Amino acid sequence: MLNQDPSLDLMFQALADPTRRSMVERLSRGPASVSELAKPLPISLPAVVQHLQVLEQSGLVRSEKVGRVRTCTLDSGALSLAEQWINDRRTQWVRRLDRLGDFLAANPEDDGERS
Amino acid sequence: MLNQDPSLDLMFQALADPTRRSMVERLSRGPASVSELAKPLPISLPAVVQHLQVLEQSGLVRSEKVGRVRTCTLDSGALSLAEQWINDRRTQWVRRLDRLGDFLAANPEDDGERS
Repeated sequence: MLNQDPSLDLMFQALADPTRRSMVERLSRGPASVSELAKPLPISLPAVVQHLQVLEQSGLVRSEKVGRVRTCTLDSGALSLAEQWINDRRTQWVRRLDRLGDFLAANPEDDGERS
Repeated sequence: MLNQDPSLDLMFQALADPTRRSMVERLSRGPASVSELAKPLPISLPAVVQHLQVLEQSGLVRSEKVGRVRTCTLDSGALSLAEQWINDRRTQWVRRLDRLGDFLAANPEDDGERS
């Protein structure tokens, strides 16, 4: 069941932090070294590395060390998965909007025992 | 700056839990009372209410009490906001994919001091 997909837990958790979203935003403009990622951020390099680990564990970001430079890249496939989950729910909701209208029309007030 | 939008923090945080995603999934098929939401879930009603509060604080779900029944509905606008944030990043990434190709072609190996 997709709702139980632990990778979605990790992805949405990763995106729930503004620093990590800034890093994803930066990486959406192209790969970056860890220090390039850290440069605009008002936090220490070790803190950036911790955030990067959360992003890597979620699958949203991959990194590879070549020589002394660790280069980080966004995984657009993982990003798609998170986007698709939301899109599926939203699309389903929009499709059912007519039924919602019917429901509300049929239940203008409800002070019964249905709970 | 959209990355700093605290509502995105709350929305992605809300979506990072499989129980809450199940509730959003259920609500994407139409409004539901709290007990309808709780029925398929293997957790207590108070736990469901707590998850519902997280969803409401994030803006993804609204609820209204009419008589004795609290009816929950999905806010597709809020869902759109979260989806749009991911979509913007992914689209940007895809647009820059050519530049990424250029970058990788120009940097097949890098053992320099750039860190």
